[in-house]
Amino acid sequence: MLVVVCTSLLLLLAVCSGARYRAPSPGPWVIPTVGEPWPKPQQLVNYEGYVVVRPTVFTFEVTREDCDLIQEAMKRYYRVVLQTLDRGIQKRTSRRAADKRWRKDSRFKAYLDSLEIQLMAPCEVLPYLHMDEHYELRINSPDLPGAALLTSQSVWGILRGMETFTQLLWLDETGTALKVNSSAIMDFPRYPHRGLLLDTSRHFFPLPAILQMLDAMEANKMNVFHWHIVDDNSFPYESAAFPQLSKKGAYNPRTHVYTRIQIRLVIEYARLRGIRVLPEFDSPGHTQSWGLGLPGLLTPCYSGSKPDGTYGPVDPIQETSYKFLQKFLAEAVELFPEKYIHLGGDEVDFDCWASNSDILRFMESHNITGDFSKLEEIYIQRLVNTASNLSASSLVWQEVFDNGVILPQDTVVHIWKGDMQKELAKVTAEGHPALVSQCWYLDHLESGGDWHKFYRCDPDNFNGTEAQKRLVMGGEACMWSEFVDASNLSPRVWPRAAAAAERLWSTVEVDFDEVDRRMEEHVCRLNRRGIRAQPANGPGYCPYIFY
Amino acid sequence: MLVVVCTSLLLLLAVCSGARYRAPSPGPWVIPTVGEPWPKPQQLVNYEGYVVVRPTVFTFEVTREDCDLIQEAMKRYYRVVLQTLDRGIQKRTSRRAADKRWRKDSRFKAYLDSLEIQLMAPCEVLPYLHMDEHYELRINSPDLPGAALLTSQSVWGILRGMETFTQLLWLDETGTALKVNSSAIMDFPRYPHRGLLLDTSRHFFPLPAILQMLDAMEANKMNVFHWHIVDDNSFPYESAAFPQLSKKGAYNPRTHVYTRIQIRLVIEYARLRGIRVLPEFDSPGHTQSWGLGLPGLLTPCYSGSKPDGTYGPVDPIQETSYKFLQKFLAEAVELFPEKYIHLGGDEVDFDCWASNSDILRFMESHNITGDFSKLEEIYIQRLVNTASNLSASSLVWQEVFDNGVILPQDTVVHIWKGDMQKELAKVTAEGHPALVSQCWYLDHLESGGDWHKFYRCDPDNFNGTEAQKRLVMGGEACMWSEFVDASNLSPRVWPRAAAAAERLWSTVEVDFDEVDRRMEEHVCRLNRRGIRAQPANGPGYCPYIFY
Repeated sequence: MLVVVCTSLLLLLAVCSGARYRAPSPGPWVIPTVGEPWPKPQQLVNYEGYVVVRPTVFTFEVTREDCDLIQEAMKRYYRVVLQTLDRGIQKRTSRRAADKRWRKDSRFKAYLDSLEIQLMAPCEVLPYLHMDEHYELRINSPDLPGAALLTSQSVWGILRGMETFTQLLWLDETGTALKVNSSAIMDFPRYPHRGLLLDTSRHFFPLPAILQMLDAMEANKMNVFHWHIVDDNSFPYESAAFPQLSKKGAYNPRTHVYTRIQIRLVIEYARLRGIRVLPEFDSPGHTQSWGLGLPGLLTPCYSGSKPDGTYGPVDPIQETSYKFLQKFLAEAVELFPEKYIHLGGDEVDFDCWASNSDILRFMESHNITGDFSKLEEIYIQRLVNTASNLSASSLVWQEVFDNGVILPQDTVVHIWKGDMQKELAKVTAEGHPALVSQCWYLDHLESGGDWHKFYRCDPDNFNGTEAQKRLVMGGEACMWSEFVDASNLSPRVWPRAAAAAERLWSTVEVDFDEVDRRMEEHVCRLNRRGIRAQPANGPGYCPYIFY
Repeated sequence: MLVVVCTSLLLLLAVCSGARYRAPSPGPWVIPTVGEPWPKPQQLVNYEGYVVVRPTVFTFEVTREDCDLIQEAMKRYYRVVLQTLDRGIQKRTSRRAADKRWRKDSRFKAYLDSLEIQLMAPCEVLPYLHMDEHYELRINSPDLPGAALLTSQSVWGILRGMETFTQLLWLDETGTALKVNSSAIMDFPRYPHRGLLLDTSRHFFPLPAILQMLDAMEANKMNVFHWHIVDDNSFPYESAAFPQLSKKGAYNPRTHVYTRIQIRLVIEYARLRGIRVLPEFDSPGHTQSWGLGLPGLLTPCYSGSKPDGTYGPVDPIQETSYKFLQKFLAEAVELFPEKYIHLGGDEVDFDCWASNSDILRFMESHNITGDFSKLEEIYIQRLVNTASNLSASSLVWQEVFDNGVILPQDTVVHIWKGDMQKELAKVTAEGHPALVSQCWYLDHLESGGDWHKFYRCDPDNFNGTEAQKRLVMGGEACMWSEFVDASNLSPRVWPRAAAAAERLWSTVEVDFDEVDRRMEEHVCRLNRRGIRAQPANGPGYCPYIFY
């Protein structure tokens, strides 16, 4: 039915990117690559022939600096190597038979029994913005016959390189052993901030679902987990100073909360993968659930002269609001090692403020009558200052900037709507670092494979000086969870977020045929690792996954 | 971000059904009902108070006719009853404490320790079109104090009634026991054919994924599994007479095939749930994968005077084609007990036929030069006759009818595109039974909850006489699998297909607030049974499922 599905879509959506028409033919639409990494390395040179990895023999050998990050990564990637083989086993041929076959194959160069890991500088402990992720990887290259070497100045580069190494492995036709092409890779990210936002307020996600997102992020070299932890609908974040917030604000305080112990666990799990955990406490809007645990925090809305029982944004004229925020943020900054904190600031509803006579009186006395963005400015500026007094740097959603709030130079403006190019030009022209999500909203669905639209988005594509371009830190794929919970999270995010991941890591890619084929392999790779990723390119199958 | 997601969608998709704007407020958007069945029964009367079911004590008691269908259903539904309780356990209060509490509750009427099952006529063995699914269910009704009775003239009605009974159970606030409202239900389906189509050719689905679809169908009172088993991309159907078809046509003949044993297993699993398995062997188009195993079956396409190496539909001018089809269909009719067989007939590409001089010569000699639908007619008529000679009734996609092919009166026309109302009027005016899928394509996605669009579709909504209306057999939700495999099947189909299921079972429902609330409960019900169903109505959570 594809043809007509597609045509009807053309009418329905005026777009049919993924499900573009192909003449009917048997077999898959896209033939996967074999042993091609995602995201694509900056430089990859293939030499003649391949080496064979025998998973039970193979070892990682750390010959310079070492630390828990590397040791833990070794355990993870041994598992991946074995999985790659195990999933492949169909018909076992004997080791000897295999040996004989390879000996006969002129492309067979050697057995590769170890990957040497050379970290040239002491390990860092915590990932951070602008951490060094550069690495070099050589496998049976002319200068390194029969051996493999991964080098980096930074433990983060080592982690990225280990990921790439395991992605280079491909399964022998008979499914009895792993091969790697002789090759040399020099690689580093295009942007330092490559994030995934997860909204755990509209729906709650149990810890395992979050940890699996981190596994998948590592497999895509993403390095920021933006935890949109609370919002209007529920408040699962457990605060020590204000326990009432989750007691009253969570969907279920006994089952639908993130305790401080669980949060530390997520942070550690992410750290081991070189992923920063960036918390967001969005205010003054999007705070309905905060009000349940903290009566008096939100602005009472009036109809006429009486409160109508509903509440608006955080009440910006009460000193108690700022006392609370000071204490609340101090606790958060202590809990999350990340230097940055996201303060939100999006979609502030002015109607409720406008209905409240106390607010209006306050605005009058401050000579800002009628100008609610000025009122918002008063609030946000105190919030940003509070954060910087806690020596935290802030991110805010673009409205804060659009409304003309004066912000510290280092405050990052997070773009999520409107004309991305214009907004990027404006934000960077005023010297603010910028983060892009406008084109990476994973909750925007289209029939058919719609990851191309995410792939086409380029944060560098705006009019600006080199200095302005350098202010673009990267971007984030956003999984708002109005219609997502643990039942559909993984296939909704993957592989669609992988499109953003490659765009943010690799140099701009043009050849969609090559990208499609690499994506096809990557989807099977993710599923092989137990990450449910949905089909990317239409009809097909994963050779070694039996669904 | 919902507001703006939604507005941008209005621009993007010109529709924003599910994700319609709600004023921000804490908590879920939709509060689930408690113990309200989906689909909605034809008649439900609630009486005062409730009875308490103690799962470990509770039994089904068969007091009239009995058979394997009922015995198997009892085992399934005991499990559901226990699941309902188990998932609920949070804080155990002692039985005595519970007893005391209920004794104090004037709404508590009695413990319900059994459901009496009265099947008034001998069991039938196989489900079929127009089987009787009517049932009556009384629970602590005035004429039945402290007891519960399920009666039906048909075992199929008993199955539907047992499903309804378990859906009426709701968990005691403390999560320690199950309650059922005193009530009386008289219920029957609006349409006899309530199907789900699964395309196992674009992607292969392992048996467990198919069996779980059948579990979910039972939970939605759907009764036809339309198995679109083969198509252009792959041929997973194992034929005894023509093993080459799957050997060459499957994605992987060792892992991606449905053996005859597996197919019988699916048929039996479905039979136990009162679900017919309707096989489709779509031809003459959509047969690219057939050609791999049967050289000579498909029409060779020509460019100029030479074959260009590509193939078109089944070659309609070769007697060998019909010899094959005769033998192939005979085998299928023997394997599938279902009286109906779906012969496809959609999207036949005439270009290849037009390029082939043998075809053109044949058409000339039959005085149908230029009229390719006449050529299609020759093919389809022989196919339909072959089926009826095997005493099978046929379904065909609407093009066959649209192209004016003369069909036997009882051939069902399956509507999937264009103006549904006009098509229904035309098809039924000519006395053909009709089946509707046009508005239930599950591969058509929209951001936000989009099940309302499926729910609004009404197969009765066309201009026609009562006689014409009676010719509408029902409909099918279609899961074409270009972009679906086992990684995302379940949350893609559920709860969206449930909208079609209720439309096809219940009287037309208008109050969307009530429907939303019942759907909210139903989604949690499905997840509690282990069926991954995605959120239907925006932010919220399942009380007793911890994701």
